[in-house]
Amino acid sequence: KMVTDLLPAKNGEEYTMQFLLEVVDILTNYVRKTFDRSTKVLDFHHPHQLLEGMEGFSLELCDQPESLEQILVDCRDTLKYGVRTGHPRFFNQLSSGLDIIGLAGEWLTSTANTNMFTYEIAPVFVLMEQLTLKKMREIIGWPNGEGDGIFSPGGAISNMYSVMVARYKHYPEVKIKGMTAAPRLVLFTSEHSHYSIKKASAVLGFVLSTSDFYCACYLVKWFCCVSAVQGFVPVFVNATAGSTVYGAFDPINEIADICEKYSMWLHVDVPNSVTWNPHKMMGVPLQCSAILVREKGLLQGCNSMCAGYLFQPDKQYDVTYDTGDKAIQCGRHVDIFKFWLMWKSKGTIGFEKHIDRCLELSEYLYHKIKNREGYEMVFEGKPQHTNVCFWYIPPSLRLLPDGEEKRQRLHRVAPKIKAMMMECGTTMVGYQPQGDKVNFFRMVISNPAVTRSDIDFLIDEIERLGQDL
Amino acid sequence: KMVTDLLPAKNGEEYTMQFLLEVVDILTNYVRKTFDRSTKVLDFHHPHQLLEGMEGFSLELCDQPESLEQILVDCRDTLKYGVRTGHPRFFNQLSSGLDIIGLAGEWLTSTANTNMFTYEIAPVFVLMEQLTLKKMREIIGWPNGEGDGIFSPGGAISNMYSVMVARYKHYPEVKIKGMTAAPRLVLFTSEHSHYSIKKASAVLGFVLSTSDFYCACYLVKWFCCVSAVQGFVPVFVNATAGSTVYGAFDPINEIADICEKYSMWLHVDVPNSVTWNPHKMMGVPLQCSAILVREKGLLQGCNSMCAGYLFQPDKQYDVTYDTGDKAIQCGRHVDIFKFWLMWKSKGTIGFEKHIDRCLELSEYLYHKIKNREGYEMVFEGKPQHTNVCFWYIPPSLRLLPDGEEKRQRLHRVAPKIKAMMMECGTTMVGYQPQGDKVNFFRMVISNPAVTRSDIDFLIDEIERLGQDL
Repeated sequence: KMVTDLLPAKNGEEYTMQFLLEVVDILTNYVRKTFDRSTKVLDFHHPHQLLEGMEGFSLELCDQPESLEQILVDCRDTLKYGVRTGHPRFFNQLSSGLDIIGLAGEWLTSTANTNMFTYEIAPVFVLMEQLTLKKMREIIGWPNGEGDGIFSPGGAISNMYSVMVARYKHYPEVKIKGMTAAPRLVLFTSEHSHYSIKKASAVLGFVLSTSDFYCACYLVKWFCCVSAVQGFVPVFVNATAGSTVYGAFDPINEIADICEKYSMWLHVDVPNSVTWNPHKMMGVPLQCSAILVREKGLLQGCNSMCAGYLFQPDKQYDVTYDTGDKAIQCGRHVDIFKFWLMWKSKGTIGFEKHIDRCLELSEYLYHKIKNREGYEMVFEGKPQHTNVCFWYIPPSLRLLPDGEEKRQRLHRVAPKIKAMMMECGTTMVGYQPQGDKVNFFRMVISNPAVTRSDIDFLIDEIERLGQDL
Repeated sequence: KMVTDLLPAKNGEEYTMQFLLEVVDILTNYVRKTFDRSTKVLDFHHPHQLLEGMEGFSLELCDQPESLEQILVDCRDTLKYGVRTGHPRFFNQLSSGLDIIGLAGEWLTSTANTNMFTYEIAPVFVLMEQLTLKKMREIIGWPNGEGDGIFSPGGAISNMYSVMVARYKHYPEVKIKGMTAAPRLVLFTSEHSHYSIKKASAVLGFVLSTSDFYCACYLVKWFCCVSAVQGFVPVFVNATAGSTVYGAFDPINEIADICEKYSMWLHVDVPNSVTWNPHKMMGVPLQCSAILVREKGLLQGCNSMCAGYLFQPDKQYDVTYDTGDKAIQCGRHVDIFKFWLMWKSKGTIGFEKHIDRCLELSEYLYHKIKNREGYEMVFEGKPQHTNVCFWYIPPSLRLLPDGEEKRQRLHRVAPKIKAMMMECGTTMVGYQPQGDKVNFFRMVISNPAVTRSDIDFLIDEIERLGQDL
């Protein structure tokens, strides 16, 4: 049946519901297979291969409609050529796993298809967001969970909110008069912090200042140096609790003392704002990220524009629940429901157990390879988070003397193993260079389906693929 | 069964799949009822009522997990106290309707649960995005569909991208040196443009300049005035094709000529960038918004940070398909698939028919109330888009002489009728004041399920609720 026959108004008729149930069938089969370790993680193809069109599956868009049968084929093939991020052997990103409650929450959310800008059209979701944000602030330890916050489309935007709010707190006139109303605002962060902090600095017109190490005494020196230059003002300090690559923690308490003394905004913890991404360690489906701000009213003050067509003051309900004007977005996707539903279903203790388990598995990996032949850790000592960074050194390199040749050859090992992994489709793990360190593997664990056997499998696979390099 | 029993790794086991199918049952029933006109649009409750907890439904989050049975109740109740934005009598927002193909696309997307940052983990979705963006640029009329673009979390962020890219084009050094590397950048937009342009101006440190009317000669004068002031540079001009409230179109061709002459960036059309929101008139589920940029390379140049852990240059595939560094986000939700799938299923002609039909229905409404007793149009002449703006004047006000008392009483009419509508749950339509105009209704149509009978119903309902005011 052609879908043009659906027009003008056939959505919801029985055969469209049948179609939806057939899609559900495809999806539940996909989910079952995702948790089956005999399924490949991916079936890799190069862009040109997929663009040329696989049998029966063309990405091209046409003037004329396709049949519902073909749409079902498209759905099946889209999944077929994609990556199973919920597979227990997908370690490529910190967002991994497929939580069934979270998934159900996301299906419900897309069925409700509403928008977070007003209480009027999202009453339950707006209240869930407020309650959940308060709970998160309590967990952070702000007295009585007071403060403010909002869910945003990802951690990068949450980080950007923190810089915006700090700028507004120090120079509120920027909102009206533009950036020339402020001196040169300087932002400090460690080079190991997430790159989104640099993006936020660039977007918001700050001067970025970074250093490789990060201690309280360095921060004091930095503050004095910057302040000494005419027209420069150090405003914003970012601290990282679990850096992207190493999973390392900055000395937050010491940094907090310095920031308080010199009236600088500290992002991540204690005084001012925190980014918290439930779509990472907590395993909530993408996307789910919150920015929490300790001082109430700043988000609203910074971002409100009071659009008359959405935020009418003469509504019949308490319009302080129309939280949309705090956002830099207008429409805002409902990211709260899946998270709320998972929290209901696991309880706080469920999340706690899950994270403890991921940390245990990381320790298992660490102990397994620490003294194993052919492995070298990027750092001494136990990892601070689930990140385990290591080199695999193929037999042919093990006897080479340290030096530039060995470095260059080792640099090519991880990309080669990763490429072979992807061709085989058996597992996925990230790699990268960092500073003067050549390409190393960066293992992260957040999927509750992972067991020790999957860690063992990864190591076996690295050795199988890398032994002859 | 308690969900803690699920831990550590029971997702995907048969009883979790059964749970998912029970949720599907709840959702398909919800969808069927949404298209049934005898169902209420909403069952309104005040925030304090929902917060106190309805029978068997508490929003509070606890340490201990809930049973799967209770989770199903939570799902049912969340839908029960929400708003049916797909109901044929929901006219409150331009995003309305519930397209079954789009919904299936969204369910598949959340099941795939991946991220748009690299080709590596979203190969099919990344290619779909590129093909679709090119198709959109062709439709806009850029030669060979050339240019650049990206899907973003909503129209407000798409608009913000346009301002960012324009700033980067004129003053690329801002990315490194902060806003003090630029003079006072001025942004011009009409007061009828969407408020997100003002948000973007504030976020990005511009000086905002607005005017009520918008013609080419005014723009020339404005350019000369701003340029004459030491240190001010007019950089960015926003034009609106279908304004938020009135659905009015700025004279884009004339504006384009002026902008070209004076080297100013024009957003929306012809020379530089366009925001296109498929989640509005095209009826794609929330959220789905694209920013299209005519000049290639600007998005990348403006936003790239080359994070080593995601964008390794030594991957085995063509890394120009790793489009993530164009975004201001790091992780980016897959908003493309549902849109691509709807396009496949309707064809370009299907979208065309759908939009024509919405415009016809708006005209039907316009002709119906134009000369009807008790109605007054906010504007003379046919609306330019689906927006129909009008006052309903209750009998008690009809004989009052024009003047401040009548204005003030009329101002209170729309909020009262809207509040009663929401209490009854029969329909929803927006209202607002604008400039010196007191509160009026703003009707918008984008739902393919709407028929003339639903327009008739809205008018009957306004009269039923408003006749004794």
